[in-house]
Amino acid sequence: MPYVNIKITREGASAEQKAELIAGVTELLRKTLNKNPATTVVVIDEVDTDNWGIGGESVTVRRARGQ
Amino acid sequence: MPYVNIKITREGASAEQKAELIAGVTELLRKTLNKNPATTVVVIDEVDTDNWGIGGESVTVRRARGQ
Amino acid sequence: MPYVNIKITREGASAEQKAELIAGVTELLRKTLNKNPATTVVVIDEVDTDNWGIGGESVTVRRARGQ
Amino acid sequence: MPYVNIKITREGASAEQKAELIAGVTELLRKTLNKNPATTVVVIDEVDTDNWGIGGESVTVRRARGQ
Amino acid sequence: MPYVNIKITREGASAEQKAELIAGVTELLRKTLNKNPATTVVVIDEVDTDNWGIGGESVTVRRARGQ
Amino acid sequence: MPYVNIKITREGASAEQKAELIAGVTELLRKTLNKNPATTVVVIDEVDTDNWGIGGESVTVRRARGQ
Repeated sequence: MPYVNIKITREGASAEQKAELIAGVTELLRKTLNKNPATTVVVIDEVDTDNWGIGGESVTVRRARGQ
Repeated sequence: MPYVNIKITREGASAEQKAELIAGVTELLRKTLNKNPATTVVVIDEVDTDNWGIGGESVTVRRARGQ
Repeated sequence: MPYVNIKITREGASAEQKAELIAGVTELLRKTLNKNPATTVVVIDEVDTDNWGIGGESVTVRRARGQ
Repeated sequence: MPYVNIKITREGASAEQKAELIAGVTELLRKTLNKNPATTVVVIDEVDTDNWGIGGESVTVRRARGQ
Repeated sequence: MPYVNIKITREGASAEQKAELIAGVTELLRKTLNKNPATTVVVIDEVDTDNWGIGGESVTVRRARGQ
Repeated sequence: MPYVNIKITREGASAEQKAELIAGVTELLRKTLNKNPATTVVVIDEVDTDNWGIGGESVTVRRARGQ
């Protein structure tokens, strides 16, 4: 019955990679806490780099500097 | 003053249906807990089916199987 | 398969009132968008009044003024 | 190490304004609680006015009335 | 730089199990999307069974029935 | 009408410091985006250090090492 929300910057994750995240975190909860995969919900949010900040500046600005 | 976040898959909910959700949950909080509708905030997130997982797989894959 | 998060101030909601919220919002999603109740998840967060702000001040301060 | 999520209606905030929010809230956490800016994460969600409700109705409806 | 929020019912997860979740999901994001572990943030919320609903009723009620 | 959620580790923030965060972020949204303070909602979550991970390990473990 767990609920997992994964937020990443929108930088081209493929449907296959997102499916791998969903399968992987569902299995991790089963293995670690014996949670039922059938009712484990995973929601992935992809966030524009203008809308994600770290270190006081946006990821857009950091990427432009090569970080 | 409550805050409600409703996450659903992005599968064509209309503006009318979303207005019905907003009105309905605001009224539910007034009726149940006497919360003031004027300051009840509701945010609806519509999530791509590739980005929503249940049972360890994406809703896209489940829909393709007819689930 | 919806996920609903309801945040309210921690001011004595009973288990019965919270059960009413869970049943009510699940039914609202079934009626409005034909969502399956069996996989509708609802999480209620009760938040200390010191930790909830509106109008630039905490609910603790507002309650002390009689609001 | 704080995590801040700011939700606003999608009504034309510019990249510059969003950068100002990111810088401002990061500095606020440094000044108030001595939190390290290098690991402070800020995520801004811009939400369609159909999907944001207050007072039991959507912001789209309120804007149409001039509110 | 990802942010992951894991919500589970409060039913006695140990510090060791929670550490395993943190390590596991951080590694999953590194392996799948090449995300930097140093800036991957994981927050685990443990939610009272009265406050978690599925199928229109609380987990407290379901546990009492043996589910 | 913005909604802001601030998550910090539970390490003794006082009611005064939390009031300062609420006032500060509300003013930042007014100044930057002309948002109405009267309907700006701020929710602060304080999270146990066992439940917060960064760099693949819990803050409890990091604090024990002096980080």
